[in-house]
Amino acid sequence: MRTHYCGQLSSQTIGQEVTLCGWAHRRRDHGGVIFIDLRDREGLAQVVCDPDRPEMFKVAESIRNEFCLKIVGKVRARPAGSTNANIASGEVEILCQNIEVLNPSVTPPFQLDDENLSENVRLQHRVLDLRRPQMQKNMMLRYKTAMAFRRYLDNAGFIDIETPMLTKSTPEGARDYLVPSRVNAGQFFALPQSPQLFKQLLMIAGFDRYYQITKCFRDEDLRADRQPEFTQVDIETSFLNEAEITGIMENLIRTVFKEAIDVDLPNPFPRISYSEAMQRYGSDKPDLRVTLELTEVTDAVKDVPFKVFANVANSENGRVAALRIPGGNSLTRGEIDAYASFVGIYGAKGLAYIKVNDVTQINESGLQSPIVKNLNEAALKAIIERTGAQSGDLIFFCADKAKVVNDALGALRIKIGHEKGFVNGSAWEPLWVVDFPMFEYDEENKRWAACHHPFTSPKDEHVGLLATDPGKCLAKAYDLAVNGWEMGGGSVRIHRADVQEQVFSALGIDEEEAKIKFGFLLDALKYGAPPHGGIAFGLDRIVTMMTGAESIRDVIAFPKTQRAQCLLTDAPSEVDEKQLRELHIRLRQKVEPQVKA
Amino acid sequence: MRTHYCGQLSSQTIGQEVTLCGWAHRRRDHGGVIFIDLRDREGLAQVVCDPDRPEMFKVAESIRNEFCLKIVGKVRARPAGSTNANIASGEVEILCQNIEVLNPSVTPPFQLDDENLSENVRLQHRVLDLRRPQMQKNMMLRYKTAMAFRRYLDNAGFIDIETPMLTKSTPEGARDYLVPSRVNAGQFFALPQSPQLFKQLLMIAGFDRYYQITKCFRDEDLRADRQPEFTQVDIETSFLNEAEITGIMENLIRTVFKEAIDVDLPNPFPRISYSEAMQRYGSDKPDLRVTLELTEVTDAVKDVPFKVFANVANSENGRVAALRIPGGNSLTRGEIDAYASFVGIYGAKGLAYIKVNDVTQINESGLQSPIVKNLNEAALKAIIERTGAQSGDLIFFCADKAKVVNDALGALRIKIGHEKGFVNGSAWEPLWVVDFPMFEYDEENKRWAACHHPFTSPKDEHVGLLATDPGKCLAKAYDLAVNGWEMGGGSVRIHRADVQEQVFSALGIDEEEAKIKFGFLLDALKYGAPPHGGIAFGLDRIVTMMTGAESIRDVIAFPKTQRAQCLLTDAPSEVDEKQLRELHIRLRQKVEPQVKA
Repeated sequence: MRTHYCGQLSSQTIGQEVTLCGWAHRRRDHGGVIFIDLRDREGLAQVVCDPDRPEMFKVAESIRNEFCLKIVGKVRARPAGSTNANIASGEVEILCQNIEVLNPSVTPPFQLDDENLSENVRLQHRVLDLRRPQMQKNMMLRYKTAMAFRRYLDNAGFIDIETPMLTKSTPEGARDYLVPSRVNAGQFFALPQSPQLFKQLLMIAGFDRYYQITKCFRDEDLRADRQPEFTQVDIETSFLNEAEITGIMENLIRTVFKEAIDVDLPNPFPRISYSEAMQRYGSDKPDLRVTLELTEVTDAVKDVPFKVFANVANSENGRVAALRIPGGNSLTRGEIDAYASFVGIYGAKGLAYIKVNDVTQINESGLQSPIVKNLNEAALKAIIERTGAQSGDLIFFCADKAKVVNDALGALRIKIGHEKGFVNGSAWEPLWVVDFPMFEYDEENKRWAACHHPFTSPKDEHVGLLATDPGKCLAKAYDLAVNGWEMGGGSVRIHRADVQEQVFSALGIDEEEAKIKFGFLLDALKYGAPPHGGIAFGLDRIVTMMTGAESIRDVIAFPKTQRAQCLLTDAPSEVDEKQLRELHIRLRQKVEPQVKA
Repeated sequence: MRTHYCGQLSSQTIGQEVTLCGWAHRRRDHGGVIFIDLRDREGLAQVVCDPDRPEMFKVAESIRNEFCLKIVGKVRARPAGSTNANIASGEVEILCQNIEVLNPSVTPPFQLDDENLSENVRLQHRVLDLRRPQMQKNMMLRYKTAMAFRRYLDNAGFIDIETPMLTKSTPEGARDYLVPSRVNAGQFFALPQSPQLFKQLLMIAGFDRYYQITKCFRDEDLRADRQPEFTQVDIETSFLNEAEITGIMENLIRTVFKEAIDVDLPNPFPRISYSEAMQRYGSDKPDLRVTLELTEVTDAVKDVPFKVFANVANSENGRVAALRIPGGNSLTRGEIDAYASFVGIYGAKGLAYIKVNDVTQINESGLQSPIVKNLNEAALKAIIERTGAQSGDLIFFCADKAKVVNDALGALRIKIGHEKGFVNGSAWEPLWVVDFPMFEYDEENKRWAACHHPFTSPKDEHVGLLATDPGKCLAKAYDLAVNGWEMGGGSVRIHRADVQEQVFSALGIDEEEAKIKFGFLLDALKYGAPPHGGIAFGLDRIVTMMTGAESIRDVIAFPKTQRAQCLLTDAPSEVDEKQLRELHIRLRQKVEPQVKA
């Protein structure tokens, strides 16, 4: 029906007769002439309706916002002074010859260019919300990004193989979404939390290089950056080691960023170990745009009179760390109090600090703080030296279990960094975090749990530690973090049945349990499984970062709310008793009709 | 780890030192030398292990089938007379310098080249089954086909937008798979039967051209070509009419066949109306490779003494049709009886026939059949003339409700056509079937039902019939059939709320019901919905046809059985009581542990 998209018109098209299809974005009447901004997915074009064509003009007068129109007209240059540099077709306008109203519209519940809509209103009227130019751009960028992934992987010999959506429930990790089986009474499928096991089976089946852009499901309580269903770029390859896999993957990410948003990411990405990341940034996904760093002082305060520090420093898993804020001496009391309550969110019981008035005097006259008198000179010297503090600086301290200190000071580092401008000016800071521990101790259940997942390979030289000292055992695991977000994570997998059994045993999974849950994997490992490994990237997050959107809901066409509801279609909803009967289930209790949020 | 895939070696590589990774497909010992056929996803390569390298040779001696190996060696020409034209690397072999066993294998439960495996064994050991060269090829072809779809659609300005997997149950059409909601007690999501409504919403949102290769779900009893989850290439576009949409789509299919299997499909595809397809082939997805056709004789037998024909010919929805078999006079009594019981499967109560001994005598001496004496001369003349029968032919007849006649003779046409070689020799016969009726009468529920779905647009000139004579109302619907399989189907959709309401009304869906089920679509149609339409192709079927596989299970990596079970992972399975409690459901009755099929 059309010859051009609105956004394709430019000074190159002047003099051509064009046919456009789209929506009336705005209509203005000015000096007896009607101006219609026509909108389609590629942009806007200004249509001029002169009263000298009375039949056409009569149609133009009837047009309201969001009418769907077909317009025939001639492209001409806009009069001097009325060009619009903000839009692609801003130098031209279309002198209208004919308008056809393809479909009228009732008055929309909101203006499409209203920037202050509540998210609930937007989600209820998602179809109109998606017409907004920003949402059109977001969905286009999402597509462009996904295609950049596909092109790169295709060229590199990866093939997309679909894995099942109706699969087996494994009550490990997150909560499964279940699907009752009609044919097999009393049994349930689960929707996949990830295609992890299937992609390993595909490697064992010899497909060598696999990828899939696929939906994954987790029935967890939702946060701003979580959805019940999310999209993963899932990748696995055989016969490559950790360095080779991460090498291909960072090349992939560089290519995707270049193609999607024309950004040059560094080459190579920096790599730091998990333990260094925790030491320096208190996080396994550090935001390297922030220049502040944590300083280790645990060993320096073991003997100080200040019990809060000394007790922690001498306890198991205790950590005392400092965060130096250059020029922080000028922070107000109010600011410092606000930071103290901020770290409280992460479980920190307090936020000690020292104002460095004069760095040449390592005592109560040079260093201003109620705790200084309880820290001995050696400790103070070590603190000043290691933090590199200068006169005018402020040093924050946190002393607690290492996890609390890392979470609290890690978050404070980001907060102060961005609020006070301690940033390096770089827009994108990717890095690999490597050498993760295999296991972390689950205090609640008094057992070791897998840090990544139970199929992650230990470092070759650490296999012996599986039985003797699992806490010291490092994994061939890697995470890709960008600007403080985890963008992807993966590992080299275990390809030998005997090592897999040792890992299950370290996790306290006995032979029978392993057989029931993962028997098909253990079985497959026996038939010459190749060395293999892979990664999964979160597509929703990557695109959210690229667009600068606040929520992943802005890069998903039809997202769920934080109560896991679709406000557009009103899902989930009640179903017929007959449907439940066919599925051999019943509700636990009669549900009263609810008013939806 | 490798320098080449096995299948990449050729006379071009002679003299090079290569590293290969793969599996021992076969090991032969011959004249003191060990030959290993090494297999990877690209093919086989012959590795020669000479005893003059004792260390390497010792490893070679330990190798059994399916060991995972890394081999270093030098490519050389095979000795004259020992080349193998069946494999890509058949002119060369690798003189082995070093073998590393990356992982040994226990003895597989079957030989990979065993062609007579039961499907159950294959599905239980799917990982080994997928190692078989044919399955590797099938999965590669599936990928190639999907990528050909993506490339074409990408170039044509279509964008892939993901629609939700957790969506709303609409108890229409097939049975939904349900997913209980934990957060919203007593409520359920449904897995999508197709993204139909969402793709229409995306058109209304202005995305103009959409596609998605996505999983769809139907909880129906399974047949050979059905799976609980299947993959659809889903497409929708705005501002195009029926001819334009089918034009783009047949171009797409031509391109996909060319790129995936190097086949040139005809240009353009033939188009016939639904009513002509039923008249001539008794099917709305006729196999045009078969040259036999049905002949209409209903009107010619209205007055014959033979009551079986005359009664049907004078009844509502009755049809009497003939199927001429050239040279069929030579069919044996046994063959004819077998065909008669074959049509019984489709509900036909009998299969009358006339043997044409001498076409110049339109009477009992020229035409041999118990029914001839009960057909008057006018009828016999019409039959001979219309079928174009020659001496030596045989004519089958079926008289019944039109549906039974079409199903029975349509199936018989295919069966005899392929068995007796009445085929045109063409490997691929695509065609469009168009002008479908909007509605078919549902005898059971005494109401009109949608032939396609309730969002299909009627022909512009038939909108008036919606209220007065829905049975006569034709739709802007089109199916693409290839070789007797439905490969895809679609329609121009209704874009005006008033027409949509008239269609609901013809279907007996009242305003309240429509609002509950499709309120969000009706609402969206009010805001300037564009004219739009689309199609969905069945990827599993297309690839099955391309490979010549017997079942779509052969082109799906991890399929379900006809009892909707995954024999590899043992899904579906029982789940913990705790999981059910969290989902606010309970089982109807305690299920006894079952032995799986």
